[in-house]
Formats: sequence, structure tokens, C-alpha cells
Amino acid sequence: MHRGGSLHAAHLAYETWGNLNARADNALLILTGLSPSAHAASSPEDPSPGWWEAMIGPGKAIDSNRYFIICVNSLGSCKGSTGAASINPGTGKPYQLDYPELCLEDIAVSAHELVRHLGISRLRALVGPSMGGMSSLAFAVLYPGMAPNLVLISTAPHSLPFATAIRSLQRECIRRDPRWLDGRYAADAWPEQGFRLARKLGMVTYRSAHEWRGRFGRKRVSEPARGAFEREFEVEAYLDAHADRFVGSFDPNCYLYLSRAMDWFDLADHGGDVDNALGQMQVKRALVIGVPSDILFPIEQQREIAEGLRSAGAVVDFFALPSIQGHDSFLVDFERFAPPVADFLGCL
Amino acid sequence: MHRGGSLHAAHLAYETWGNLNARADNALLILTGLSPSAHAASSPEDPSPGWWEAMIGPGKAIDSNRYFIICVNSLGSCKGSTGAASINPGTGKPYQLDYPELCLEDIAVSAHELVRHLGISRLRALVGPSMGGMSSLAFAVLYPGMAPNLVLISTAPHSLPFATAIRSLQRECIRRDPRWLDGRYAADAWPEQGFRLARKLGMVTYRSAHEWRGRFGRKRVSEPARGAFEREFEVEAYLDAHADRFVGSFDPNCYLYLSRAMDWFDLADHGGDVDNALGQMQVKRALVIGVPSDILFPIEQQREIAEGLRSAGAVVDFFALPSIQGHDSFLVDFERFAPPVADFLGCL
Repeated sequence: MHRGGSLHAAHLAYETWGNLNARADNALLILTGLSPSAHAASSPEDPSPGWWEAMIGPGKAIDSNRYFIICVNSLGSCKGSTGAASINPGTGKPYQLDYPELCLEDIAVSAHELVRHLGISRLRALVGPSMGGMSSLAFAVLYPGMAPNLVLISTAPHSLPFATAIRSLQRECIRRDPRWLDGRYAADAWPEQGFRLARKLGMVTYRSAHEWRGRFGRKRVSEPARGAFEREFEVEAYLDAHADRFVGSFDPNCYLYLSRAMDWFDLADHGGDVDNALGQMQVKRALVIGVPSDILFPIEQQREIAEGLRSAGAVVDFFALPSIQGHDSFLVDFERFAPPVADFLGCL
Repeated sequence: MHRGGSLHAAHLAYETWGNLNARADNALLILTGLSPSAHAASSPEDPSPGWWEAMIGPGKAIDSNRYFIICVNSLGSCKGSTGAASINPGTGKPYQLDYPELCLEDIAVSAHELVRHLGISRLRALVGPSMGGMSSLAFAVLYPGMAPNLVLISTAPHSLPFATAIRSLQRECIRRDPRWLDGRYAADAWPEQGFRLARKLGMVTYRSAHEWRGRFGRKRVSEPARGAFEREFEVEAYLDAHADRFVGSFDPNCYLYLSRAMDWFDLADHGGDVDNALGQMQVKRALVIGVPSDILFPIEQQREIAEGLRSAGAVVDFFALPSIQGHDSFLVDFERFAPPVADFLGCL
């Protein structure tokens, strides 16, 4: 592991769409945000819709007729890859906080092992939204020339203090839950209240105030909660609904590990500063997209990446899309996101 | 009380600076944000610096040589005025959640009683920053003509869903603390961890990402906390320091009451819509100030107030100041805030 320690007999969950060609030169790797699984799109084996269903498939922006598409569940997550909730083969019990310190570099290194295991010596394209974009930057700087074409979406070379403050509070919400027990909670006694708070705080930063103003305004719920100071407004019910969906489907310790890895990551650690690191990647073409309504990964950070890659000699397309859904726009505003991705990948 | 119930033998804490003239027509009332006391500036009786020390005093922007300045601790607070932490004379114990439902209208009505008690039938000016601006709007609409000159700073006619979401999460942080006990905590066993989280989340929205980027960047603390997932970055230490100062000096139940009152308040309840309400106030002149870096009370809301008052026939000065400190700018960026306030109050 990047900061020391090791994992034995670790697993990586991944899914693929399309076919690897004979020269093994049409592979496209997707690294994900903090919470998604490898199930980015439906397939004959699993026909349920994936988290990027609108973007991936035959004839879609990420075209499985053209590319052999791989999506990997990040190392440290809990959707099939080995994370803090997995069984430690050394003890027969879940790792919990015995899991080694996790970095985005570890996610990149493990994804690279997967790619090599699939017989691919060079990716045609590497696609990373959000945390997946940070992991992609780690991949590109650790394996220069391995990913000559990058698609970086709503991401950053490192976290700025506003984002770190939000994530720190999310982690504290989990840690302060009396049921967290320094990570030693039982499978049937999760620190649910703290995790709900963490998820709700996340949602506040994933969307935008502008979107919510139009969507919720000052609307009240039809049946207010009965307890003192409990929910009355629709925006509160919306946050509750998101917490309902997330809690129970993601492990709180895994969340802590991945969240901290995002705050730790700094592309500048690989080469002294961000521009030097970008210059080492041997990137030929890049598509960098962001939205100005994103408060978690502000558009200036995508601009910084685009300009750094351009200075390093890459041909870079940069788009600041006017989506109003904030950081989550790439998960919902396909009308705006699909065309530039399709154009870029169609010309490689 | 505005929503029913009543308080008996309630107190209001207030401080004054300067002298009321013979015609009692030089009074200026300040209504405060959520947490400040009535001690807005030092005085012979209390020489400690007040929370708006740079703004109030002889020759300052709010000039005590010219005005008889009154600052009142909001009803429902815990700085001398009767709130949930006060003793209920009916039981001899703290009200806690037996305190009646509190609205900003109650803060306005009680402040009006104070003004009348001081022999003042009409204010020369009413000054309200943040929640105090919302309370001032309540005052102005409940007592038309009583406050012909308004100074409204970083405030709003009602909360938008982003601000409500943040406040809802702050309240939930307090409510979920196992020591909250439905408000029946003992004086020596406050729900401190939940209240710390609430305060930290507040600070994230009181300042701006831009300010923090320059101030903290990715700086680490010299001595990281030892526990797993605890603080490492300076921005985390900054939030801890703010929580240290606040917790122990403000009552969590009072915080809940005031926070909910802000979300409940809607100027549009007084006249059908915001513009009608603004039109009823009989305001002659107004100064409306905001900062574009404020994410809690966005500048559009101050613009809405300014335009509404202008449509109602008032002479309105509107300033969008380029302060980078977000909502809290009026508490720190006096170089920008003092001149327009001094100009406005100097000409009344």
C-alpha cells in the first residue's frame, strides 16, 4: 500500500462491456466516484440499470461497439472489492480499522493490475468523474504513457479546504455516533444516525442552491414529523429519502477510508507541483469538463488541470457546462454531458 | 406569542450607547444575528469589546455622538433575555422544550415593547445584520412607519432551501446527540458533541471557500490528533477552535429555537408576497448590503429586498461588496462595511 502495510488475497470487482479487439488497443477504463459500484451500465449478465446507464452502451457516448469498457469498484470500497468491511483472511473477521491506510494511489495501482491482468498494456482512454478523476490522475502520473487520452469530469488535482472541511464533518458525524465504537460495530448495529447525517451533508454539497430554489422553494411536507424540531420542509424530506437509500447499502468504515483518501490525495506530491505532475503523464489528448455550480469541485480546479495539460503539450478540450445540478450534474444532466464525451471518444 | 402560548415575567437584555435627545427622535435599534448578545460595543459599564466594536461608538459608522443606540438580545436567546434555558417561573425549573414556539415576529414584538418602554414612539433607524435583518423586516412590517430608515445587511426575506437544509442538519446534529434527551439535559451534561458539529457546519457556511483557499490551502496541523480519522488539516483545527469558543457559551435548546425561527420566517406571510409586505412598511430610506461570496444569504436575496423597497417608493442604496469572508464579512471586513453605513446614517 502507498502508505505502508499490505493486503493479501485482495479482490477487485469489475464489469466490462463490449469486446477487446485482437490488438488489445481499444480498452477504456472508468474509475468511479466515492460510492458507485462497478455496475456502471446494464449487461446481459446483470440487466439492472447501472449508475451511468445513460452514458455507456452500444451507440452511446461511451460506446461499447467501439470500446472494451472496464469499470472497477475502487479498492477500499464495499461493492465487491476488498475494503474495511471485507473479511481479513488472517483473522476470519472483518478488517474494520485493521484495514491498512488507503490512498487513491492504491486505487490506481490496483486498477492497473486489473488492466494488465486483462492483457492490456495501454489504455485507449481513461475516464474519471469526481473521486474517479482524482484516481485517474494518480493512475496517469504513476504509469506515464499508459493512459494517453484522459476524460476528467468534475474533479480536482487535490481537495481544497472547503471540501476537506465538509468531508471532515462527514467523518466526524460517523465517528461521533455512539454505535461507531472505533469502527468495531456489528453488522446489525451500524452507526446509522451518524451515517445518515454524513450522507445528508454530502447531498447538500453534491447539488446546488440554485437547483433547490426552483425545485423545493419553501414547500412544506404534507405530513410533518411529530418530534420537536423535526422535518417540515420538502428539502428536509428529500435529504431523508437520500439517506434512506444510502444507509444500509454502504459500509461506514469504507466511507471513512475513501473520504480520507480524497483529502490526502495531492497530485503535487508526484513531481513537486501540479503542473510538473501533469507534465509527466505523457497525455496526448484530454477532455476536461466541469460545472460552475459545483461547490465541492469548483470549476477553477478543472481549469487548472486543463491548462496544466495544455502546457505539457496535450490537446485539451475544456468545457464549463451550465448545468444547475452542481457536482452531481454528470449523473443527471446527460443532455449536456453526453455530447462532448461522445465527440471526444468518437475521434480517438 | 406569534404561534400561540405566552411567556410571563419574561426579561429582555439590552444595552445602549449615546443619549436619547429631548424629542426622543434619535434612537437607533440593532437587532442581532443568531448568536450575539446585546453587548455590541464596549461602554463605561462594560469595557470589554463588543461583537460590533469596530462599528459602534463615538465618531464610528454607527455614531453614539449622534444616535441613542440600543442593542437587544433576541427573545429566545440565552444572553440575558428569556429563552429555553431560562427558569420558568411557573415551575422553578428551566423551560427547555416547554418554552413556547418562537418566531422572529416574537423577537420583533418584544423589541418593540422595549423601544416603547424607553419612551420612543418612532425609531430614527433600524439596523439588522443576518437573522437580525429578518427580525428587522418583521418589525418593520408589524409596525408600519415605526422604522422609516432601514439598514439591512446580509439578510433575506425568508430562508431558501440550501440554508434550510444546512440549519436542519445543524438541528439534527444536536437532536441526535444522545445527551440531548429531548431537551432535558442537565446543566453539567450538555449535548456537546452534537453542538460542536452544528457549530462547525455553521462555520463552513459563514465563511467562503475562496477565503479558506488562501488562508489554509492544504496546510497540515503540526500535531495531528491521534485517533483514527481525526484532524490533520489546519482547516479542521480552525473549525475545532470555533467550536471550542462557542460550545459552553450558548445553550443548545436556545440554538434550536432560534434556528427554527429563521427557517419558519417568511416576510411573504405578511401581505401575500414579499413585495406587498415591503410595500406596507412605510420605509423612506434604506441601505441594503450583501456580499456575493455569501452562500447562506445569497446576494440575490438582498437585491430582492432592495428592489422591492424601491418599488414601494423608498430611496434605496444597494451595495454588493466584494468581501471574500462570505456571510461573516459584516463581522470582519469593516474597511468595506463601515463607509456605506457611516454615509447612510450620517445623512439621516
